[in-house]
Amino acid sequence: MHVTEHARLEKTAIPGIEHRTLASAAQGLRHLSIWRQSVAPGGATPPHRHDCEEVVVVLAGRGRAVIAGVSHAFGPDTTLAIPSGVDHQIFAGGDEPLELIAAFSATPVRTDLPDGTPLALPWAT
Amino acid sequence: MHVTEHARLEKTAIPGIEHRTLASAAQGLRHLSIWRQSVAPGGATPPHRHDCEEVVVVLAGRGRAVIAGVSHAFGPDTTLAIPSGVDHQIFAGGDEPLELIAAFSATPVRTDLPDGTPLALPWAT
Repeated sequence: MHVTEHARLEKTAIPGIEHRTLASAAQGLRHLSIWRQSVAPGGATPPHRHDCEEVVVVLAGRGRAVIAGVSHAFGPDTTLAIPSGVDHQIFAGGDEPLELIAAFSATPVRTDLPDGTPLALPWAT
Repeated sequence: MHVTEHARLEKTAIPGIEHRTLASAAQGLRHLSIWRQSVAPGGATPPHRHDCEEVVVVLAGRGRAVIAGVSHAFGPDTTLAIPSGVDHQIFAGGDEPLELIAAFSATPVRTDLPDGTPLALPWAT
């Protein structure tokens, strides 16, 4: 199936994060995974890293990204490029939800906490 | 540089298509390229294929995608997953510009016409 209408984002087990996997192995992909997320103001991802490259396109909202220990404030229309294996964490700030699309150079997307513990994400990666 | 504010989309040599490369080798990536495009109503890409996987996330607007010879009408909030090496063409329909983000599992992104002629795109891929 090549063409998929997006269903609504769904609440996840991570407080403040709504998610929808837009494309992954379920669409026949082997080297690409695309997620859409909304992060409520005050919400954050856990600190983590992936075994592939990630690009986050910020469509709306503001926040802060800590990438390899360096904090970057960002507004809407910002792109974050995160190398493979680099620890990062994203915080939603401001008054509006942080709306983003995340693209990964692998599917499934392996995710580990900074201490190397695998993080089992509650969605198809 | 990990964090880039988007500049405005720019007109390209392809009629009706405005483009901005959001992330590619210039941001240190090796396996991922992200483009943002706006296609004016009535505009279209040429028919073409890539040597990598592509996902198109339709943020706004309507159109039609021909993928491997099959036509798919789409509205906003649709995702197109295009396997490597498959010919495709995207047409903007409706009254509003087609706004999309395209993610590729390679950088640079090789693009060929259906007859195998390389297509030199007028932007960083």
